[in-house]
Amino acid sequence: MKSIAIIGASGYTGAQMTALIYEQPTLSIQGLYVSENSLDKDKLLSELYPNYSHISLALQPLSPHAKDTIVAECDAVVLATDHKVSLHLAAWFYQQGLVVFDLSGAYRFSDLAQYPKWYGFEHEYPQVLAQAVYGLAEWDQGQIEQTKMIAVPGCYPTASLIALKPLAPLMTQTLPVINAVSGVTGAGRKVQLHTSFCEVSLMPYGVLGHRHQPEIATHLGHEVIFTPHLGNFKRGILATITVELEAGTTTEDIEKAYGVYDNSPLVTVKHNQFPKLDDVVQTPNCHLGWKFDEQTHYLVVSSAIDNLMKGAASQALQCIKIHYKL
Amino acid sequence: MKSIAIIGASGYTGAQMTALIYEQPTLSIQGLYVSENSLDKDKLLSELYPNYSHISLALQPLSPHAKDTIVAECDAVVLATDHKVSLHLAAWFYQQGLVVFDLSGAYRFSDLAQYPKWYGFEHEYPQVLAQAVYGLAEWDQGQIEQTKMIAVPGCYPTASLIALKPLAPLMTQTLPVINAVSGVTGAGRKVQLHTSFCEVSLMPYGVLGHRHQPEIATHLGHEVIFTPHLGNFKRGILATITVELEAGTTTEDIEKAYGVYDNSPLVTVKHNQFPKLDDVVQTPNCHLGWKFDEQTHYLVVSSAIDNLMKGAASQALQCIKIHYKL
Amino acid sequence: MKSIAIIGASGYTGAQMTALIYEQPTLSIQGLYVSENSLDKDKLLSELYPNYSHISLALQPLSPHAKDTIVAECDAVVLATDHKVSLHLAAWFYQQGLVVFDLSGAYRFSDLAQYPKWYGFEHEYPQVLAQAVYGLAEWDQGQIEQTKMIAVPGCYPTASLIALKPLAPLMTQTLPVINAVSGVTGAGRKVQLHTSFCEVSLMPYGVLGHRHQPEIATHLGHEVIFTPHLGNFKRGILATITVELEAGTTTEDIEKAYGVYDNSPLVTVKHNQFPKLDDVVQTPNCHLGWKFDEQTHYLVVSSAIDNLMKGAASQALQCIKIHYKL
Amino acid sequence: MKSIAIIGASGYTGAQMTALIYEQPTLSIQGLYVSENSLDKDKLLSELYPNYSHISLALQPLSPHAKDTIVAECDAVVLATDHKVSLHLAAWFYQQGLVVFDLSGAYRFSDLAQYPKWYGFEHEYPQVLAQAVYGLAEWDQGQIEQTKMIAVPGCYPTASLIALKPLAPLMTQTLPVINAVSGVTGAGRKVQLHTSFCEVSLMPYGVLGHRHQPEIATHLGHEVIFTPHLGNFKRGILATITVELEAGTTTEDIEKAYGVYDNSPLVTVKHNQFPKLDDVVQTPNCHLGWKFDEQTHYLVVSSAIDNLMKGAASQALQCIKIHYKL
Repeated sequence: MKSIAIIGASGYTGAQMTALIYEQPTLSIQGLYVSENSLDKDKLLSELYPNYSHISLALQPLSPHAKDTIVAECDAVVLATDHKVSLHLAAWFYQQGLVVFDLSGAYRFSDLAQYPKWYGFEHEYPQVLAQAVYGLAEWDQGQIEQTKMIAVPGCYPTASLIALKPLAPLMTQTLPVINAVSGVTGAGRKVQLHTSFCEVSLMPYGVLGHRHQPEIATHLGHEVIFTPHLGNFKRGILATITVELEAGTTTEDIEKAYGVYDNSPLVTVKHNQFPKLDDVVQTPNCHLGWKFDEQTHYLVVSSAIDNLMKGAASQALQCIKIHYKL
Repeated sequence: MKSIAIIGASGYTGAQMTALIYEQPTLSIQGLYVSENSLDKDKLLSELYPNYSHISLALQPLSPHAKDTIVAECDAVVLATDHKVSLHLAAWFYQQGLVVFDLSGAYRFSDLAQYPKWYGFEHEYPQVLAQAVYGLAEWDQGQIEQTKMIAVPGCYPTASLIALKPLAPLMTQTLPVINAVSGVTGAGRKVQLHTSFCEVSLMPYGVLGHRHQPEIATHLGHEVIFTPHLGNFKRGILATITVELEAGTTTEDIEKAYGVYDNSPLVTVKHNQFPKLDDVVQTPNCHLGWKFDEQTHYLVVSSAIDNLMKGAASQALQCIKIHYKL
Repeated sequence: MKSIAIIGASGYTGAQMTALIYEQPTLSIQGLYVSENSLDKDKLLSELYPNYSHISLALQPLSPHAKDTIVAECDAVVLATDHKVSLHLAAWFYQQGLVVFDLSGAYRFSDLAQYPKWYGFEHEYPQVLAQAVYGLAEWDQGQIEQTKMIAVPGCYPTASLIALKPLAPLMTQTLPVINAVSGVTGAGRKVQLHTSFCEVSLMPYGVLGHRHQPEIATHLGHEVIFTPHLGNFKRGILATITVELEAGTTTEDIEKAYGVYDNSPLVTVKHNQFPKLDDVVQTPNCHLGWKFDEQTHYLVVSSAIDNLMKGAASQALQCIKIHYKL
Repeated sequence: MKSIAIIGASGYTGAQMTALIYEQPTLSIQGLYVSENSLDKDKLLSELYPNYSHISLALQPLSPHAKDTIVAECDAVVLATDHKVSLHLAAWFYQQGLVVFDLSGAYRFSDLAQYPKWYGFEHEYPQVLAQAVYGLAEWDQGQIEQTKMIAVPGCYPTASLIALKPLAPLMTQTLPVINAVSGVTGAGRKVQLHTSFCEVSLMPYGVLGHRHQPEIATHLGHEVIFTPHLGNFKRGILATITVELEAGTTTEDIEKAYGVYDNSPLVTVKHNQFPKLDDVVQTPNCHLGWKFDEQTHYLVVSSAIDNLMKGAASQALQCIKIHYKL
């Protein structure tokens, strides 16, 4: 039995994380935590999320004393906190010897220069960062087992990388084009005009400048064009990706490349059959569908995940299970 | 040509009002106004509402000077402002001689005692209030023509009263039960957690205590039970109303009662055929459908309107046209 | 380990039933069946429902041979079939000695006269019907344990009866008014114009004549007005109910009445706090919220369930567990 | 005053066309027509579309006699019919001397070889086809004025071509990638499982094989990759397009290229600001937003239209007005 503290449990990702860990027979939740000045502190999780009425856990303030107790009682922490909050908390808990599963972007780049550019802060913990592993569960299993600092991937990168990584050896220099649509939970639970019910309708954002573009490019090893959109639904990401492959590539080559997922129960790959978003919502699955035009060498692949599950919490749970060999 | 100033034009109702008046050949918009400390002041309306890209009007701050200019240049003002703001502005513009069309609740009760109870303020202008007429367009035509102070009805009361007023003489003492579902625009444009996209899903609110209950009861002349709900759509109200009628009432009696709308082009009444919300959205229409059980004397009637149109802006326009005989 | 056949597994309810039983460690699925002339026969369930990609079961035609095999191999059948199909299948399997959990309306009335009126057929199996028990899990536990013929309640009746049965001793003769809104899955998976995406928007149907009205009235022991609506969402039912209670009833009386659910983990009751539909969707829970006006003696209670779960499949699973003491 | 018959008026496009022409002071509707074996024949349009309750026109069967009457009484016909039906009707009415505005795909290619490939029929009227003009209103004005056979563009091509045509001289040989999401009305009003409310959720379809790909390529003069998606909304198309431009292209070059729309009131172009779908729904407008990366020479442009308006009916109305100089 491993004991885990969940920090940032009041947000959509933290709450989903709580629900998933709560159901695991070999994991126990040491506590749920929020920032000391959160308006939600000392509330029950189920006050914020009545759908979790079966979970009787309160949102405790993350005081210095609480941090010490976590270190004393826990094997690991899950950080569902803001990037900058995670930056410090991850380093601190790591240095105390805990295993850290960080769902923010604070440890996803190994290149220090990326942080000021995309996150607006200098990374102050290069030594911790040097130990961080990117937790794309189907690809980084060996490293996830061995490190104590796991940077769980972003939602768009997860959808994109699962679709693209098998194709990397076949690509030309033409940039893959990733068009993705995310549900509104991707913007978090804080109140904002552009995520008000009456304001939401399909639109692009972060065009040619979203921080998930370099995350995808880095972990793919190939530049990409990435255009995210906000969609009028609560959960899920559908990424449709257009890639030019080397002349001479055959359909069989692609089938073979995607065969890498033959033993991955959470990734379903279909040829000439495309995923529908709701088929993955509320699940830990990734559905891929692809079609290839042998004449033009262009391939289109769509990738569907639940942004709060495979794009965040259920992938973190995969990482926990891999790390602890559960 | 009548010249009109629209105050509170940045909100959903004010913007809709602007779009409607803009299309009227015999009305001109003197200006759009917002509060002096609004973050939207000096923006174009079309920055907030790109769907009105054809309307090149800015949101001016309502300074003392602007108020004087309005008095000098306008025939009328439309107030799409908060109740307490309308309370004062309506009185002031009325006293300067303008015709006031107020879309707030500040002048809907003639009984002064209702204001502290339902709106949290004392009504300071009993003499202006004494001149105010409730602007339910199909029912109050004569008075709308004659007064300069028109209190345009609320959205739920409009839907409910159009359905119930013809039945009033046939009702028993049993309370009519009004269940209504409103689109989220009914909550206005200000940012709130409960109207965030991810938080919205069908639920009741204001149960046994919503301020539109006494508005309906007062203008119906009969107590009612009124339960509003928030629905997962942007616009529209559907009110389903259950009424017990006097023993001996026949289907013909009801048909005759609803015949009051035979010459009302915006009200469609159907027997045994029920309205669908989207059929009235973006229109000034009210669709009624009813069925009567002669054995139990219970009647069910559904009433559908667009909350921003017949429930606010297009009814205000009806009042303007009635008043000016356009 | 109990072995169960699921008949009608291609529909929304049958598929949900399959997913639930599939996860139970003490239940095994003997097979999934569809009508012999179904276009879906011999398909995998996951072809129709890719979200169940982890379930590798085919939809077998229910041939005479298949029926004999079911009798030989199963402890129970679940019928997620049309009312008239269930009528015959339930009787046949019951007579062969299996336990029957029927999700249709074919065995919900003990009064034979109701069937031609509400379902358009004569009930041909009065002796089987005499053994049938209404499977409202929180109320009929003892009987569910003892009979082999369980009629699982309809979705609207489940939402309504859970809210109303505790209040029955306190009601006046005034008819309770039930207004309910259902997600579109309630209309089943067959293709129809009124459930086409572009045609759906909030509207009432079956006014003063829906077959769930007598089902509610029978099992409540009190006549009711019941008005169902179709809503623009996939799953869930929210029923808002207005009831007049006897003069002298106090808030404490009502709290005491709802105390009947104190030991029912799936029913949550809140005073002055109302349920939101999405909080129960995809769950087996029923959320109740109520408010009482001591002056008028009117009470408003809202009841939220997932129509395919507590309104069908998860309630059937509760019945299975009660019957087999799992 | 020009007199127009609308054929295929029971569908979403035909009904929208009717509503638009109905409001034009210089156009009159001679009649609405449906196929002789339509189940909707002799119904009022408002029975199918209660939102058009103000239009008292019946759907007449298109008998041989009716066709003769149309020729005798009308200046023009609008065909909102299936491709193969339009093929014959357009030729016939054209040969009788009427002006034909065809909203189907039957006259959009000048190359006869495309029809069997994309529409499954041989084009039997090469001489009529030779007179046909593609009615992209902002681009083909001169030709629309002069011919009597106007092929109104498809919805996806309209959104795509308005965005891409100004850029054509700047493009490299790399294929532009068009990802578009359409509302469900794009699939028409006929009943199908995949457009049932419960089945709809974001997904791609027609990947690397949709008939609008060659329509776009033909009228752009450049091959493209086009991937359409079905979205969970009723109306609207958002197309997000990624294009590689020639090295040396500047932001000013692009601004200049889009300046072609400076005098097109229905096309709004914004730099670094992207369109939201609902801002064009129910309007005849096209909103474009673009951003250019001078380092990589990639440009992303999004184009939003209402598929039934600018993508069909309101563009047909533009063509009518251009042709008749209204």
